[in-house]
Amino acid sequence: MSTGDLSRFSINQMTVKQLSMPELVEECGRLGIGNVGLWREPVQSYGLEATAKLVRDAGLTVTTLCRGGFLTAIEPGERATALDDNRLAVDEAAALGTDVLVLVSGGLPAGSRDLRGARERIADALGELGPYAEERGVKLAIEPLHPMYAADRCVVSTLAQALDLAERFPAHQVGVTVDTYHIWWDDTAPAQIARAGAGGRIHTFQLADWTTPLPEGVLNGRGQIGDGAIDMREWKGYVEAAGYDGTIEVELFNDGLWARDGREVLAETARRFVEHVIR
Amino acid sequence: MSTGDLSRFSINQMTVKQLSMPELVEECGRLGIGNVGLWREPVQSYGLEATAKLVRDAGLTVTTLCRGGFLTAIEPGERATALDDNRLAVDEAAALGTDVLVLVSGGLPAGSRDLRGARERIADALGELGPYAEERGVKLAIEPLHPMYAADRCVVSTLAQALDLAERFPAHQVGVTVDTYHIWWDDTAPAQIARAGAGGRIHTFQLADWTTPLPEGVLNGRGQIGDGAIDMREWKGYVEAAGYDGTIEVELFNDGLWARDGREVLAETARRFVEHVIR
Repeated sequence: MSTGDLSRFSINQMTVKQLSMPELVEECGRLGIGNVGLWREPVQSYGLEATAKLVRDAGLTVTTLCRGGFLTAIEPGERATALDDNRLAVDEAAALGTDVLVLVSGGLPAGSRDLRGARERIADALGELGPYAEERGVKLAIEPLHPMYAADRCVVSTLAQALDLAERFPAHQVGVTVDTYHIWWDDTAPAQIARAGAGGRIHTFQLADWTTPLPEGVLNGRGQIGDGAIDMREWKGYVEAAGYDGTIEVELFNDGLWARDGREVLAETARRFVEHVIR
Repeated sequence: MSTGDLSRFSINQMTVKQLSMPELVEECGRLGIGNVGLWREPVQSYGLEATAKLVRDAGLTVTTLCRGGFLTAIEPGERATALDDNRLAVDEAAALGTDVLVLVSGGLPAGSRDLRGARERIADALGELGPYAEERGVKLAIEPLHPMYAADRCVVSTLAQALDLAERFPAHQVGVTVDTYHIWWDDTAPAQIARAGAGGRIHTFQLADWTTPLPEGVLNGRGQIGDGAIDMREWKGYVEAAGYDGTIEVELFNDGLWARDGREVLAETARRFVEHVIR
């Protein structure tokens, strides 16, 4: 496999979370993978400065840090804690050398049925976090999550909703994450991708495939590229037509993949990327 | 509980599928429930004519028959079989005295990734079934299902998509099912309900609540009214503002409810309806 084939490929760390940080970096080197998306928990566990040095020394580009967000709390103390944590996430992104922090907005507070109110509190939080991020050279990328997460994880369910929020702020502060897993069913998504691209707001493009049946809790059933219902080339075409020529992250949460040897899964994911996305 | 409180309530048979047809009819009489939504399988099992006589003699109104659909097959033989089965479903609806047949459109054929093509085949099928249904006094009600079913059950995921299909045909042939469970997350749904109402295309209004975590396969986790994230009065307000003043069906697929005594679940559902929808 030539390095050229993988020039736009980024492996999101969650896909192979069974690999330690040094194992991940070493395997990327061996396979000619030049880009990684990192998660806060493993970064904090290995150490922020240690991680930054490890990836820098290996010549890896950090494409995104996942994730900030969870900004829907009503209670002032919870809200302040969430904002503090998001400022810390911005600092971590800057220290790791990435300019994109992915945001998962958060679900409904316990007992609430007010989606509209929750979405408005996200806007308020973005107003505080956007300038803070800009000062540190980091862009916030609101990720619409599939509508099946609207109650308990993310009240932002479509690209249109994400852009309605993002467009209240400058594009270099707030944009969106385009992830095939969450939007593939939406016939209005291609037009929203064009809207996002025209505004310079596609801050990252991520892939996962849709496979069924969904597992209990619907969190860890994201399919390996090529295994499911999503035409990856079609979605790559939409973001490219919208002017996006950046890296493409593969981010899978999948109990089956996590149970396997991480090196094998990483190599398989790179092969699938070339076969289903690039070729 | 006065009968008046329940005048717009319809119990969808699936909510209490543990009750036999005579048990269901008897309990409706005892509780002052005047409307039922029926399913084809239990009707066929008890006998079409026998069911029609049972509900007629009890003075029950059949609000809908669930369900036709599954119209996305590519292979001509499968497609002809599906159309034949839908004509039969129309005949059954007419025999039961209901004028609404609910349609669940069907998912992607095995190996296909072409959502657009699948949606187009549904339109073709509606062109054949609409006139057949009209001649028998039956309206087809396309039900958009939650996007989590887009691959394996229903490629029509939003009210907007359902209306885009329905509006190719006269309203007395093809309209939509508005079901809170499937659309509650969608901030464009209220406007689509207004569109549906303006066109005379709200053929039935159904309720189920959204509770998490979702069970494996995500089919049988529809929450009892009041247990979840959906504001039922808000959605009732939208359909009423759109001119809908018909019956309101509660349709729950829920393993927990099915494991309980069906009479108790029916009484509970009627109470919840009054408490969370009517009062």
